[in-house]
Amino acid sequence: MIRDIEPLTVEAFGPFGDVIEATPSAQNFSINYGNTHRFHDLAKVDVNNGGGRAGISIFRSTPLPMPISIRLLERHPLSSQAFFPLSPHPYLVVVAPPGDLDEKAIRVFLVQPGQGVNYHPGTWHHFCLALEAESDFLVVDRIGQGNNCDEFLLKTPFSIELQ
Amino acid sequence: MIRDIEPLTVEAFGPFGDVIEATPSAQNFSINYGNTHRFHDLAKVDVNNGGGRAGISIFRSTPLPMPISIRLLERHPLSSQAFFPLSPHPYLVVVAPPGDLDEKAIRVFLVQPGQGVNYHPGTWHHFCLALEAESDFLVVDRIGQGNNCDEFLLKTPFSIELQ
Repeated sequence: MIRDIEPLTVEAFGPFGDVIEATPSAQNFSINYGNTHRFHDLAKVDVNNGGGRAGISIFRSTPLPMPISIRLLERHPLSSQAFFPLSPHPYLVVVAPPGDLDEKAIRVFLVQPGQGVNYHPGTWHHFCLALEAESDFLVVDRIGQGNNCDEFLLKTPFSIELQ
Repeated sequence: MIRDIEPLTVEAFGPFGDVIEATPSAQNFSINYGNTHRFHDLAKVDVNNGGGRAGISIFRSTPLPMPISIRLLERHPLSSQAFFPLSPHPYLVVVAPPGDLDEKAIRVFLVQPGQGVNYHPGTWHHFCLALEAESDFLVVDRIGQGNNCDEFLLKTPFSIELQ
């Protein structure tokens, strides 16, 4: 089974989280005496549950072989998790709504360089799926104690094949 | 007066904040079944004072004309502020230690693509100084009420000239 691949848009990704992108539709204004333009507060960072705090990390992700086999999703019940690409390569985002995992509701997004995503707490997602080459991502997530990662093995694994 | 320009290192930048970089000296480990390498918790994000929370923004910075005239520093007394470059250009970081501003203690760092900085609360710094071309930065700072920006007009402005 091959899933449809959608472009990432704010509307399509809304049930899962935020799109982090410097677009005119984002709240934006000039600061620093006109020398900087601030695209403001682009993601709902939610990391303080259970004594957590925000951390900044870098993920270095290796592309999986094509076709990409999707067998497992994860979720962070206590917190959001934001990814922003630091490498000039697209990547894939595979998500499903929070709650009991409905495999029929899984969506696959092709994300372009310059676009980040922030998974809201509980959103099911696949781990980082770099494309084309090893890719770095800046990650803002929760640092703290307690179980904050559930994994779910799909009953119906599927493949993604990019043209 | 032309200031010396130093390369950014963890040691040199220590009094001012964190260097955010995927280096072997950072805490790092393999996750996601070996497909991702995590360089972990690279910056001390401190944003919750006075009811603040973490926000993710994008700053689009225009280079100043050379020689760059440094006339003003700012500080955020309530919070840290992290910058990570999204464009393949170096940038300048101008800082001074927290407390009453000692202009003789101002330092200038040349920062390479792939290196971010996180100013600790109270560290004096110049606003974003892009080089070469308009440059984007991912910024993690405090969203919240209250005065969180002091500015200080230097008694002895100075210039930075890059070769």
